[in-house]
Amino acid sequence: MNYIYEREIEVCYTPALFPFYNPENKIVVVVDILRATSAICSAFENNVKEIVPIANVEDAFKLKDQGYIIAAERNGERVDGADMGNSPFEFLEPSVRGKSIAFTTTNGTQAIEIAKQKNIVVIGAFLNHRILCNWLIHQQKDILVLCAGWKGKFNLEDTYFAGALIEYLTSYSNFTTTCDSAMASRSLYLLAKDNLYDFLSNSSHFERLKKLNKLDDIRYCLSMDKTNVIPVLKDDVIVNICSSN
Amino acid sequence: MNYIYEREIEVCYTPALFPFYNPENKIVVVVDILRATSAICSAFENNVKEIVPIANVEDAFKLKDQGYIIAAERNGERVDGADMGNSPFEFLEPSVRGKSIAFTTTNGTQAIEIAKQKNIVVIGAFLNHRILCNWLIHQQKDILVLCAGWKGKFNLEDTYFAGALIEYLTSYSNFTTTCDSAMASRSLYLLAKDNLYDFLSNSSHFERLKKLNKLDDIRYCLSMDKTNVIPVLKDDVIVNICSSN
Repeated sequence: MNYIYEREIEVCYTPALFPFYNPENKIVVVVDILRATSAICSAFENNVKEIVPIANVEDAFKLKDQGYIIAAERNGERVDGADMGNSPFEFLEPSVRGKSIAFTTTNGTQAIEIAKQKNIVVIGAFLNHRILCNWLIHQQKDILVLCAGWKGKFNLEDTYFAGALIEYLTSYSNFTTTCDSAMASRSLYLLAKDNLYDFLSNSSHFERLKKLNKLDDIRYCLSMDKTNVIPVLKDDVIVNICSSN
Repeated sequence: MNYIYEREIEVCYTPALFPFYNPENKIVVVVDILRATSAICSAFENNVKEIVPIANVEDAFKLKDQGYIIAAERNGERVDGADMGNSPFEFLEPSVRGKSIAFTTTNGTQAIEIAKQKNIVVIGAFLNHRILCNWLIHQQKDILVLCAGWKGKFNLEDTYFAGALIEYLTSYSNFTTTCDSAMASRSLYLLAKDNLYDFLSNSSHFERLKKLNKLDDIRYCLSMDKTNVIPVLKDDVIVNICSSN
């Protein structure tokens, strides 16, 4: 396939750096590998109807009376009184199929909130890597990857995913980059790709989830292409636009 | 030498992320490889008396009447009316020996401004890598490396230097890290260390300086241990505390 012009891909390491980028006319790929965006992909693979991302816990709980399932996580743990936390396995339960979910997490849903002004926002994870890449290739837009990070800081797992995206898009389509964060992400991914789990094993969030007995979540969130979904934000609600699912 | 406890080293990729770190009781190493902190090391190697880092151009020019040499750079170029820009070669000129310099740059002096609240602030560059590492080993403090970046964004050259610092301190002393940015910096440095110049050649600031015919500056700023200085901020003025110089 031939395209007339090269497209740019950039990476923003945390929502706190988003004001330094110009997202206008770009697709923003929001990434929170451990675990919000992995959970969202799992949910749509399980035919959840829709997910409303909400930045704060109080606003999420207000949707309880309207029949929404409340999924709420802070600091790696389910919030008291919520129906679910943010483990992808909870989103794969038969009981949530066809349902609407109100979702709030420490980092991921904050990143979606920040990204959504005037941009096309799509959800990325290792779980939907290939289908997302192929969709991005057909959109004829520049791309800005927004990593959720951890409470404002850089994290490794989101960076590895950004690198995986860049590696695919620059290898199989006409994407290029002049962005230092994108170059670093790609180098880090190429270094770690044959064993992401081991490379992550000293990282800050790995340690946090290990203490909470969530190593199975990490293994699942690092597995490639287990879902066939493209979750996109439309009118403040995330829906799956992949008709093959 | 035995120490009782392990010391932590963290990396903050840009001044915009500094609020997410706790610098209390730590040594903050400010890094702006291209070119502010490399220029500062060169200046003290050349026996400049002192350097006053100033965030904005107007405030720097006010010191002209008090006999200061004005070194001012914005977007890679010397500011109109300044005596010097921020090329390290200008700071090696015999004419600045023994003089006091007021210094303002796009990124580096802003980073020093942000770092200076209540912390010990030291200037780092490849040019003073080894002497700085050995000094840090003897300070019995945790370390926070503050990369100046480029206008709020991550950059590769400062990250490589942060990685070089971490590699040395964790190899030759009792430093450890649980910081994802530090781990990523170290991996990136180890990947690039045998040819930093080539690894940087696609980076954003390399391109910028190439257009300004400053490739010699880059080569010099990437060379290790050309200076024997430890520039430290004391009462808002940078002085060299290395008595061997």
